[in-house]
Amino acid sequence: MGKQKFYLDKLARTFQIRNRLLRQGLAECLGTLILVMFGCGAVAQVVLSAGSHGLFLTVNFAFGFGATLGILVCGQVSGGHLNPTVTFAQCLLGREPWIKFPVYFLFQTLGAFLGSGVIFGLYYDAMWDFGKNDLIVVGEKATAGIFATYPSNHLTLLNGFFDQLIGTAALIVCILAIVDPYNNPIPRGLEAFTVGFVVLVIGLSMGFNSGYAVNPARDFGPRLFTALAGWGREVFTAHSYWFFVPIFAPFLGTVVGVLVYQLMVGFHVEGEARDKMEATEDERIKLSNVATKDAA
Amino acid sequence: MGKQKFYLDKLARTFQIRNRLLRQGLAECLGTLILVMFGCGAVAQVVLSAGSHGLFLTVNFAFGFGATLGILVCGQVSGGHLNPTVTFAQCLLGREPWIKFPVYFLFQTLGAFLGSGVIFGLYYDAMWDFGKNDLIVVGEKATAGIFATYPSNHLTLLNGFFDQLIGTAALIVCILAIVDPYNNPIPRGLEAFTVGFVVLVIGLSMGFNSGYAVNPARDFGPRLFTALAGWGREVFTAHSYWFFVPIFAPFLGTVVGVLVYQLMVGFHVEGEARDKMEATEDERIKLSNVATKDAA
Amino acid sequence: MGKQKFYLDKLARTFQIRNRLLRQGLAECLGTLILVMFGCGAVAQVVLSAGSHGLFLTVNFAFGFGATLGILVCGQVSGGHLNPTVTFAQCLLGREPWIKFPVYFLFQTLGAFLGSGVIFGLYYDAMWDFGKNDLIVVGEKATAGIFATYPSNHLTLLNGFFDQLIGTAALIVCILAIVDPYNNPIPRGLEAFTVGFVVLVIGLSMGFNSGYAVNPARDFGPRLFTALAGWGREVFTAHSYWFFVPIFAPFLGTVVGVLVYQLMVGFHVEGEARDKMEATEDERIKLSNVATKDAA
Amino acid sequence: MGKQKFYLDKLARTFQIRNRLLRQGLAECLGTLILVMFGCGAVAQVVLSAGSHGLFLTVNFAFGFGATLGILVCGQVSGGHLNPTVTFAQCLLGREPWIKFPVYFLFQTLGAFLGSGVIFGLYYDAMWDFGKNDLIVVGEKATAGIFATYPSNHLTLLNGFFDQLIGTAALIVCILAIVDPYNNPIPRGLEAFTVGFVVLVIGLSMGFNSGYAVNPARDFGPRLFTALAGWGREVFTAHSYWFFVPIFAPFLGTVVGVLVYQLMVGFHVEGEARDKMEATEDERIKLSNVATKDAA
Repeated sequence: MGKQKFYLDKLARTFQIRNRLLRQGLAECLGTLILVMFGCGAVAQVVLSAGSHGLFLTVNFAFGFGATLGILVCGQVSGGHLNPTVTFAQCLLGREPWIKFPVYFLFQTLGAFLGSGVIFGLYYDAMWDFGKNDLIVVGEKATAGIFATYPSNHLTLLNGFFDQLIGTAALIVCILAIVDPYNNPIPRGLEAFTVGFVVLVIGLSMGFNSGYAVNPARDFGPRLFTALAGWGREVFTAHSYWFFVPIFAPFLGTVVGVLVYQLMVGFHVEGEARDKMEATEDERIKLSNVATKDAA
Repeated sequence: MGKQKFYLDKLARTFQIRNRLLRQGLAECLGTLILVMFGCGAVAQVVLSAGSHGLFLTVNFAFGFGATLGILVCGQVSGGHLNPTVTFAQCLLGREPWIKFPVYFLFQTLGAFLGSGVIFGLYYDAMWDFGKNDLIVVGEKATAGIFATYPSNHLTLLNGFFDQLIGTAALIVCILAIVDPYNNPIPRGLEAFTVGFVVLVIGLSMGFNSGYAVNPARDFGPRLFTALAGWGREVFTAHSYWFFVPIFAPFLGTVVGVLVYQLMVGFHVEGEARDKMEATEDERIKLSNVATKDAA
Repeated sequence: MGKQKFYLDKLARTFQIRNRLLRQGLAECLGTLILVMFGCGAVAQVVLSAGSHGLFLTVNFAFGFGATLGILVCGQVSGGHLNPTVTFAQCLLGREPWIKFPVYFLFQTLGAFLGSGVIFGLYYDAMWDFGKNDLIVVGEKATAGIFATYPSNHLTLLNGFFDQLIGTAALIVCILAIVDPYNNPIPRGLEAFTVGFVVLVIGLSMGFNSGYAVNPARDFGPRLFTALAGWGREVFTAHSYWFFVPIFAPFLGTVVGVLVYQLMVGFHVEGEARDKMEATEDERIKLSNVATKDAA
Repeated sequence: MGKQKFYLDKLARTFQIRNRLLRQGLAECLGTLILVMFGCGAVAQVVLSAGSHGLFLTVNFAFGFGATLGILVCGQVSGGHLNPTVTFAQCLLGREPWIKFPVYFLFQTLGAFLGSGVIFGLYYDAMWDFGKNDLIVVGEKATAGIFATYPSNHLTLLNGFFDQLIGTAALIVCILAIVDPYNNPIPRGLEAFTVGFVVLVIGLSMGFNSGYAVNPARDFGPRLFTALAGWGREVFTAHSYWFFVPIFAPFLGTVVGVLVYQLMVGFHVEGEARDKMEATEDERIKLSNVATKDAA
């Protein structure tokens, strides 16, 4: 095994990337790839098997636990955001530098693009078989909905915007509670599982309108892939340019989520921690004054 | 980022609430909002999609894990009761001051009210579409059951009262075991998950009669919302004033649950702990007597 | 609150049971009550709602997580067996005194009896409604299967015996791995959850033949209840005295499970631990001999 | 109990196996037996009950949590691979000696063989009942698919090969993240649960093409069993010798998975750890040089 170790070590040194931001971007890319591969794979399984190999519930499980696994794979390196709105929230609260926002956004979108590519390859035969040798965006035999989200018929653009806004706000409130440094409700190492439950529950309760994208990268990356892979530009124009909604509404939802959490819980736990610290500080100063006096 | 930090800090100081009970009330409000938003959202998804986007099981998951997430968000601040019967049980056992009971009850009901408001907005289009432009309380196209609970046709008021009593007693027995200071069965930080499983299992086994409210705030808040939002006063009068049952039966169930747990487990583990402590105390006294004698 | 504390303390002292075995029996009784209440409650929900409020999967979840909750409630006091075969396995391996076996068996059966009584009360209206004012043991409108297990039509007694034997052996192998003092695969405090998964998986894979009793108390207690509550003695005579199978086959399965686990894993991890201990002992003796010689 | 202890001790000493590799092989055998018994048992339950006692989702749960339980049973002894591709990945990365690969492969296949034997016995009556007294490989009443995997009709061999390659690569990427010594995302003791989630999610999203074997032992062992138990050699020849695919594609997928994980995450976290270590080393050398100079 001596030789093997030597070559492995050489490989490791050759391919090691020393730029931290690039390394983090790559990790986010792989994490989001995993999320989208498992999530969209589950949608594909339900759609292409006409329901025999899955339910809407299995899609919820796959996106939820897919998020858990994506975070586990990249979390130690990049924090495991997998979603530009999470990066945005962390930047808003001053916990990450703003430069991370565009970089993560890019790599997350790239990961989502690649993840949908993997699923396209995996279900290549099944997809052509299901669509009767066509790749269709809207209708009975549509397969574009495997990758990006499209609204239900009952949904107006305004309600769709509100849907994405609320979904993302709910996501952000829960994630902020999980990662708030002043409010540590769960044992270290279980964050990824808890975020998975958040994504699962959002899917169980907010999935009927338009499939709970609540993540611009998860929606835009696969949509771009379908546009290039043969579904054509209809993926952008369908439902009066719906694709704008899951890109912009989530960021507004992030602001709402941050405000709700901070105003109702965050500022107070933070404030209490600060008050305690300042009290200790005051105490120390008083004591040192006393000591000084005594010494005098 | 210096400027951002400065403004964030200023914001935090401005909006920090220093009254502890109010802070706890606000946290309970947000926690219950999350529980009801996810739980009733899942009911809405099942009802409005006519079963294509959910099952009764997904409602059980959403209420269970919604409780978990609600507790995680507010637990550090307020204890994460989300349910006036839990507050009532803690007060009965002398673990919380009685003043908390009305305050928490109020804020929990407010949170449930707001949570159902969010779901009303999220599924606004879908609700009108499903009800054929009407908001109906009883019948095929009823949507009031998305928010508050209504009994099945087979159920008499008496059996319904027993149903809510037993459901709440089961909830309280399990929660007391989880939070009993003398019986620590699970690692710190996993309480919220375990409570989620309790709520899930109650839904799996006690949900057929009347939808397992087992929580006066979760039932009354949304019912009030529907009364104001357009369903009208029928939400109170339907099924011979059913709405009284999920308000009063749960408190009686709490008393039963507290008695069962304390008589069969609680008093004995507590007693054992006390016996040990007293034995140590006696030992100490004897030893100090001996020491005194020796010294004499 | 001073007065409340005083009365609570008085109550606690009055009702504290000081006999340890009785206390453990009571705890087992409550734990098994919870298991059966949730498990049989889920069966009732599926049967009585004709599948609209549950699936076979929800029954699996309820028995699995019901076991988890039962263990959490009583585990600190009694070990949380909830099943005489688990007590039997622990006695076989010399980890519990044999006196516990009959005592636990009795209290577990009593708990299962009471648990099915609770479900009978909870679904009283629904049960009469479903059975068209009759309590039936076999056939379309049978409700006895809510409480005790009955074999499918395809099953011979011999295969049924093997079914219960294998199911219990699988249960015991997994539980032994979880509680083996020489093989600690999971963090302390998560045993109850893991046992819940074991019960869940057995239900998912071994439930079609006869409903995976794998627990004499869980089957006999509710069967006795149904005999007394109005279903009559047919609950014992049906399917050529099937009720004998889930009482006796599980104990044979326990022996098989203990042997398989011990021969394939248990004896070796135990042996390794012993070898290490003896090596240390030998080392110590040698060293002390050296020391003695030196001193001489 | 003295006598019982004595005989138990004697038994333990008699049957203790001292050869470490053999002991590990036996443990892998039991672990894989458990995985296949629960997994294939769940398939049997769904197929033989014609869907009344399960869904494709329950099969996913059973394979996922079956993997968890298999790992819990044998993990302390053998590492809990249950899958020759996992052993292969560990050998490729120099974390296990190559001798383990053939030994584990053999015992894993043996365990899978025995596990399917148990299920054959458990559902013996049901199997003959379902197949109308025949054991059939392909078609409506086929039961061979309970044990080994067969491709869907839409699948070409090429796409099937890619399917198994990608499925295994996804498995290996997630498992490597979980066991990477330089990237510890989860608390010790929860690895088995996390691997269970990985297997679950693969089943939810990649199960429609050919039933996600992603494990040569899990597929070949049961296939061999069916060939001998009465289904005949058609289990090998069916679908143009499909059985080759789940044996060879997974190993190629392992190489892809190892490369993807190492290039995108593994080498960088490892490199960072090494850089830190070397920096500390340099520091130490510099300091000792200074110390030497000072001393001079």
